[in-house]
Amino acid sequence: MIKAVVIGTGKVARHLVGAFKNSEKVRVVQVAGRNKQALEYFSAEVHTTTDLNNLSIADIYILALSDDAIGPVSARLPENDAMYVHTSGSTPMQSLSRHKRTGVFYPLQTFSLESRVNFREVPICLEAGNEEDMSLLEVVAQNISDKIYQVNSDQRSQLHLAAVFVNNYVNHLYHIGHTICRENDLPFEILRPLIRETSAKIEYLEPFEAQTGPARRGDLGTIQKQIDQLKDPLHQSLYQQISESIQSTYASEL
Amino acid sequence: MIKAVVIGTGKVARHLVGAFKNSEKVRVVQVAGRNKQALEYFSAEVHTTTDLNNLSIADIYILALSDDAIGPVSARLPENDAMYVHTSGSTPMQSLSRHKRTGVFYPLQTFSLESRVNFREVPICLEAGNEEDMSLLEVVAQNISDKIYQVNSDQRSQLHLAAVFVNNYVNHLYHIGHTICRENDLPFEILRPLIRETSAKIEYLEPFEAQTGPARRGDLGTIQKQIDQLKDPLHQSLYQQISESIQSTYASEL
Repeated sequence: MIKAVVIGTGKVARHLVGAFKNSEKVRVVQVAGRNKQALEYFSAEVHTTTDLNNLSIADIYILALSDDAIGPVSARLPENDAMYVHTSGSTPMQSLSRHKRTGVFYPLQTFSLESRVNFREVPICLEAGNEEDMSLLEVVAQNISDKIYQVNSDQRSQLHLAAVFVNNYVNHLYHIGHTICRENDLPFEILRPLIRETSAKIEYLEPFEAQTGPARRGDLGTIQKQIDQLKDPLHQSLYQQISESIQSTYASEL
Repeated sequence: MIKAVVIGTGKVARHLVGAFKNSEKVRVVQVAGRNKQALEYFSAEVHTTTDLNNLSIADIYILALSDDAIGPVSARLPENDAMYVHTSGSTPMQSLSRHKRTGVFYPLQTFSLESRVNFREVPICLEAGNEEDMSLLEVVAQNISDKIYQVNSDQRSQLHLAAVFVNNYVNHLYHIGHTICRENDLPFEILRPLIRETSAKIEYLEPFEAQTGPARRGDLGTIQKQIDQLKDPLHQSLYQQISESIQSTYASEL
């Protein structure tokens, strides 16, 4: 049995501990965090501590922390022969370099406190300093997910950037759609089937092929009309910018 | 039985005719189009014609045409007491005003030739000149969909704009994510679960609440780092623009 200690009490920590609950080969023996109240979520099922000097012995320490906290917390951890990994998309593995054996265990998904995620579908991006450590990470990851990728620090940072576009930025476009509906007495639910189909379509079509709409057609009349319809100047310039980016993407076709 | 003639042979026409196939109260008696080859798709199941002077008698004529074609084709249609509707999101009902009874039958979905759509889930936005005509449109719409909305021309034009954001523009962000993956030897499939969850999340959370990421947190360090990571200047200014729009949306919280 591989013993793991999770350091952190946020969304990623919660989902990871939940995923390991039914794992055959990995057992979370402790959760550590400075916030007593946040630790209560875990305390019924696993030992908890607020004291980093009081960590249980484990094979792997998983720092499920915000980017800013990884370096400082790492500096306060014991030096031993265990493996230390963080779960961040945008932090290099080197941020853990004071430990002998380091790695990254980055689950590429948006986690919220409200919803359950089927962790077997969550891609886990792994990085380690050598093959032996990678093998350990693979065993740990395979226990909770079917989608394991080896991704180095440069790639991971680019992947995180791509994730900002397809997750954070896409959600902001949903928000703009929501705003337009509200301003015109239209229920947002009217857009939901379209939103679902737009994301489903790229399961079988590359986004480049799936593109439709006035910008793709170079329909300048409709583009100008729609810019004029927008009330918020920031939404106007955003419309213009995306429209230009689409027109440039397909410029050779028009 | 309500008799319908569909004028047009594109994606919307195909999906509509397919949806009416099992309808109890509506029968498509003819499909008209100028392109003989495109008409072949329909000819096994329904009468077809390339001659607008040879249209069958019907209760409703559905112009499933591109925005530009609606006016010119309408001008060539016979004058009678039937109802004439178009299927466009951005064209006012008035574009059909030479007919006595006019309306709009706008299915709000992205249709492709490749995929089947469950039409019962497709919102249909209806507009008509009077209550009697609206009743006819409602019967026709309810035969193929469970989601019927009354939407006037102003609202529909705003709805179409919202649809551009949540469909066309969202898809372009998927394309940027795809490009970043390709440039860094990463499989795009690694982003798919995130894309699915991002669109699923807003089924139970408003997009305003669902927003996460560096721009939402006002994390200027990460924002600048990510802009520097982008290779395409258009993607850089687009990143900046969306980031500013998000920061402005949550400005009062920071």
